[in-house]
Amino acid sequence: MAGLRIHSVLVTGANRGIGLGLVQHFLGMPTPPQWVFAACRAPTGQRAQELQRLASKHRNLVIIPLEVTDPASIKAAAAQVGEHLGGSGLTLLINNAGMVILNALDNETMEDMTRVYTTNTIGPLLMGQVFLPLLKEAAQGSPGSPLSCSRAAIINVSSHGGSISSPAGWDLMQIVSYRCSKAALNMLTKCQSLRYKEDGILCVALHPGWVQTDMGSSAGHMPPVTVDESVQGMLKVLSSLSEKDTGTFLDWEGNGVSW
Amino acid sequence: MAGLRIHSVLVTGANRGIGLGLVQHFLGMPTPPQWVFAACRAPTGQRAQELQRLASKHRNLVIIPLEVTDPASIKAAAAQVGEHLGGSGLTLLINNAGMVILNALDNETMEDMTRVYTTNTIGPLLMGQVFLPLLKEAAQGSPGSPLSCSRAAIINVSSHGGSISSPAGWDLMQIVSYRCSKAALNMLTKCQSLRYKEDGILCVALHPGWVQTDMGSSAGHMPPVTVDESVQGMLKVLSSLSEKDTGTFLDWEGNGVSW
Repeated sequence: MAGLRIHSVLVTGANRGIGLGLVQHFLGMPTPPQWVFAACRAPTGQRAQELQRLASKHRNLVIIPLEVTDPASIKAAAAQVGEHLGGSGLTLLINNAGMVILNALDNETMEDMTRVYTTNTIGPLLMGQVFLPLLKEAAQGSPGSPLSCSRAAIINVSSHGGSISSPAGWDLMQIVSYRCSKAALNMLTKCQSLRYKEDGILCVALHPGWVQTDMGSSAGHMPPVTVDESVQGMLKVLSSLSEKDTGTFLDWEGNGVSW
Repeated sequence: MAGLRIHSVLVTGANRGIGLGLVQHFLGMPTPPQWVFAACRAPTGQRAQELQRLASKHRNLVIIPLEVTDPASIKAAAAQVGEHLGGSGLTLLINNAGMVILNALDNETMEDMTRVYTTNTIGPLLMGQVFLPLLKEAAQGSPGSPLSCSRAAIINVSSHGGSISSPAGWDLMQIVSYRCSKAALNMLTKCQSLRYKEDGILCVALHPGWVQTDMGSSAGHMPPVTVDESVQGMLKVLSSLSEKDTGTFLDWEGNGVSW
């Protein structure tokens, strides 16, 4: 990870699971970011206690209230982040917040399809739009450099479950609302990569593995990958990303995942 | 098309464009279906005049009021279709109704993302659920036969614009809400193929070409494919579909489209 020198990073859904793991690993880097923005819905609540503990120890950690399905909340978060950054721009946006509802195809509903899509797909779209000026500012800090996570990037945490050609785990969980939302998130990532390339921003969809989190084990299974393994792998992948990777779909070990 | 003998078919969005073209071609077949159900939102309105004219000439054509984003409307339509079929089942469901909103990524909104997803993705999901008993009935009419459009099938009209690996037409139209909804529709098609295989129902996503319809030319371009060419091609493809094709993404000329 020698290559991963990030001035600033924002992680959504940062109070637990993979999001919290990412925050912990960023803080523990040999050269940690100057700013780590940990965004979550209820920063003062019971479920954000570990984040609060970390913030009391790390002056470069800022907890940001954020509801990714609420445009006004996203704008308020971007304003707050922008104040801290003071013109230096946001290097890395990690859209990690996501949800799953364990429906099978036969009992999937309009309400659940809409809810999951709003959180998993529309949220990352709105985040990209609202944080674009800050990401552009970071990219303009190193004009002419090739795309990389050290310059400016959007990482969308997707899932192998959203691979249309081989929808992983079908026999365990149908979760159609989740799969559709992640296939759509992969399309969004491709669209963001095409649109934001001219602004110097790299965009990648990342499958974190099937990870031992509340979400990963929500169907009563024991996932094979620990949060630490997943996060270490993803950070290594982030450090290796270059121009040729923008608009691709990779797993936490750096392997390409088929759409 | 010698192989395409369909007892009954329902086409959504049947009052114009590709939907109307499909209805016309089904009625004009050497051996037309016993029932052609043409579903549209406003069967008695100005925009359904051609359907009304056809219905006055063809006793096997039934116009069905249907709003694919309204579960109650879908249930009412299925009840009406079931009454006509009288226990013989529905052979073919063509989810053709769809919409596009011409936003670029920068001005895409939560409301438009939701609206397009509801029509283009959730609608076909609900249609599959509610018409499943009728499709199963058709499949059970030829037990043990391999999957085919003559036995029982769901055809989701998708788009090359929903191909994540090569999102066609990006330079002309960003239409992110549409692309995301079609990538998700492709995922839904895959999920339907996995779930409904045991019921004897074939499921395919079909790209109709870039067709000279109101929708196809909505950005002011002249699409290369006429409705007749598209529909003739699609019907030829439908006649050729077999077990190996379920869960795939094909164009109106029978070529595979990459996810």
